[in-house]
Amino acid sequence: MRDFLPSELRKREYVIRVIKEVYERYGFEPLETPAVENIETLMGKYGEEGNRLIFKILKRGEHEKTGEADLALRYDLTVPLARVVAEYGDKLPKFFKRYQIQPVWRADRPARGRYREFYQCDVDCTGTRSPVAEAEIIAAASEVLRTLGFDNFTIRLNHRQVLAGVLEAAGIAADKQGDALVAIDKLDKIGREGVAREFEARGIGADGGGKLLDFFEKLPELEHAAEFVAEGEGEVSQAVAYNRAALGRLVEFVGGHDAGALGIENLRQIVEYAEAYGVADRIKIDPSIARGLSYYTGAIMEIGVPDLAGSLGGGGRYDNLVGMFSGKEITACGFSLGLERIVLIMSERGMFPENLGRASADVLVTVWNEESVKDSLAFAAELRRSAPGLRVDVYPDADKLGKQLKYASALGVPFVVVIGDDERARGEVAVKDMKTGEQRTLKREEVAAALAEARP
Amino acid sequence: MRDFLPSELRKREYVIRVIKEVYERYGFEPLETPAVENIETLMGKYGEEGNRLIFKILKRGEHEKTGEADLALRYDLTVPLARVVAEYGDKLPKFFKRYQIQPVWRADRPARGRYREFYQCDVDCTGTRSPVAEAEIIAAASEVLRTLGFDNFTIRLNHRQVLAGVLEAAGIAADKQGDALVAIDKLDKIGREGVAREFEARGIGADGGGKLLDFFEKLPELEHAAEFVAEGEGEVSQAVAYNRAALGRLVEFVGGHDAGALGIENLRQIVEYAEAYGVADRIKIDPSIARGLSYYTGAIMEIGVPDLAGSLGGGGRYDNLVGMFSGKEITACGFSLGLERIVLIMSERGMFPENLGRASADVLVTVWNEESVKDSLAFAAELRRSAPGLRVDVYPDADKLGKQLKYASALGVPFVVVIGDDERARGEVAVKDMKTGEQRTLKREEVAAALAEARP
Repeated sequence: MRDFLPSELRKREYVIRVIKEVYERYGFEPLETPAVENIETLMGKYGEEGNRLIFKILKRGEHEKTGEADLALRYDLTVPLARVVAEYGDKLPKFFKRYQIQPVWRADRPARGRYREFYQCDVDCTGTRSPVAEAEIIAAASEVLRTLGFDNFTIRLNHRQVLAGVLEAAGIAADKQGDALVAIDKLDKIGREGVAREFEARGIGADGGGKLLDFFEKLPELEHAAEFVAEGEGEVSQAVAYNRAALGRLVEFVGGHDAGALGIENLRQIVEYAEAYGVADRIKIDPSIARGLSYYTGAIMEIGVPDLAGSLGGGGRYDNLVGMFSGKEITACGFSLGLERIVLIMSERGMFPENLGRASADVLVTVWNEESVKDSLAFAAELRRSAPGLRVDVYPDADKLGKQLKYASALGVPFVVVIGDDERARGEVAVKDMKTGEQRTLKREEVAAALAEARP
Repeated sequence: MRDFLPSELRKREYVIRVIKEVYERYGFEPLETPAVENIETLMGKYGEEGNRLIFKILKRGEHEKTGEADLALRYDLTVPLARVVAEYGDKLPKFFKRYQIQPVWRADRPARGRYREFYQCDVDCTGTRSPVAEAEIIAAASEVLRTLGFDNFTIRLNHRQVLAGVLEAAGIAADKQGDALVAIDKLDKIGREGVAREFEARGIGADGGGKLLDFFEKLPELEHAAEFVAEGEGEVSQAVAYNRAALGRLVEFVGGHDAGALGIENLRQIVEYAEAYGVADRIKIDPSIARGLSYYTGAIMEIGVPDLAGSLGGGGRYDNLVGMFSGKEITACGFSLGLERIVLIMSERGMFPENLGRASADVLVTVWNEESVKDSLAFAAELRRSAPGLRVDVYPDADKLGKQLKYASALGVPFVVVIGDDERARGEVAVKDMKTGEQRTLKREEVAAALAEARP
């Protein structure tokens, strides 16, 4: 877990501000839930590993000695949302479109860019099965990344039922499907033979395994076909052509599997609606992504950028989770962006606006001597009053002027005001530009406007 | 602990925004620390009661069974600041002026306006003994409250050394001073006889107790004197005249006590600097306030409003706390505003701006039929693009139009866009004003500007 000193925090606040602004424009509203939930609310929702990684809070007072826990720290933002939707029921809108940007805690082993306290930025819509919800979430998350300056991200899109259909069509036994997906995921790295060996080691038959390998190995070929279509007809982009081809290939392979076929139709609609939103080019149908969490029931997605292992975020449809709290089915779908990874990449790639790195103040008012402290304070108050938003610092002691200038310079404050006895007598102040070293004498009442103008 | 649904959360966000904006203008910078601290960092810093009220986190993995805790939830924002200042040392500016707005957790019995998770809004300055720091913090907190619309708050100001001097001058034994303060605090409610009885019950001698009562009972008389001075000379306000008189009275009473006399001089300077900042009228010297926390060493303050038991915030100087972590003395002083109480009072007194209560969106785009979903999405995207900041919601299904209008009305969305087949053919849309019921037909490209103009 980390402290965030001002310069790092300003980056985080910038990203959060953009996320909020974009989500608000899509009609999502803010929600916050407590850091602490009842332990039963969280246990069993994230699988075995989750149960282990949840931070648990000791009972208080006389019960402390029992060593038992009754509360736990929030582990993600989806389960608290499900609890809220179940708890508040009709007090919420029919479609509850909410965003939530808060920390979660996991007792994971820390690694590069992974922390035990980290922020999730979630956006969800409950109460509808319409693929408009998925399209809207994709469009909103895309606009967030675009606004932050990402120009080459991809949203990989798959569907739990389609995944089930593909595995079943290949003839993989139900209890081997998880293993098969883990092995297939390595196709890029270890090649066909490597994956086949893994299949064998995990007891997946050569027949089913071979069919699965054929299917996944031939997907990249569709890229060429899509390129050809895009060049030839010129009416659709390569991304759209690829998605159409991938959906066609899925129909061929999964066609006979009822739920799978419905899943493919669902993906087709999501892509079509995303097209209306102008974000279809960001989407890539990818039948290999699975998403770890067990609560997904429909579409699943992951946002990534080139040259980055792992994703910037992900999400999907989870139509049964709210029902675990309320007893009645309430459909939902959502997306989560990881603040830490976004800030890390943006820092590494120099994507933050320059003025985020600015000093803590626009001007420092220095103190000439013990007798003039009051006058410096009064002048600082005058500046704050007359230039809204101008950030004015005052040196707190009647220190040597050199020390005060050094302080301003160490903090990177761009201007320093000096009010010597002569200046004070004439109703003037000296304004020193710390970058150029240039010093100007101004009437007291002119300074606010001059500084406001000089601000970056 | 509570969930914050959108309408409540918008109030909290509004207050936080104002606090941040004001503190930034005084040259303070944001800091955030983790929710979880090592348990040793917190234990022993808040007295016996604090140790009991700290939420403790169970060790993880195989150590879970021991029932032992090694981590704990943040209990205030001052101790984490002290840890940060000790930990980062020279990486921080010489005067570290920081604000921090984060939740803290206490296992208190919940009561009206009191919760186990609540936000503190702290502002602190480390590294200087100058009373400019106190004056600046008073000025900044005052500006926060003024900007929020509070016009009748008072900052009660006292000093730990002055308090010690008063008690010693009255001849109260050191081990009875805490008891004496608790009893004196009830003077308004139970009168001189009541307090005298309490003194007796607590073993405080009649002589010392009587002197203390004389001192505190005569303070209100200074009000009349101050009123007279303010009316007569007209050069100083009644508040300033009162503070001068109170300081004079303190000098008479405490004069011989060295630390007490220095404390009085310190208060005099703080008031004088606050005068330069234009906030002296907000201050009232009040020798009866004590502040519970043990880490204060100098000035102490509390902000209150009439008709409100308890305070909106408080703070003071704590010159030894950082040293508990770093081993070397680093001076500090700060102030904490309580978000929950501010929001509660502002809600009760109708002090929030009207447009905070607005709907989740400025306009809802409806869906005419299954075939036109894409067109509605495309139009929504067009609106978001052409009117920056316009919040556009889309109904996710091709439901009956009546149901869609009912949804907009339930959410309070002020405008609804309907695109029937005829309108679509003509490149037009119908815009319905949900308040007046009036409906206008506009060219598609005119809608964004019309809606942007109609926004409150």
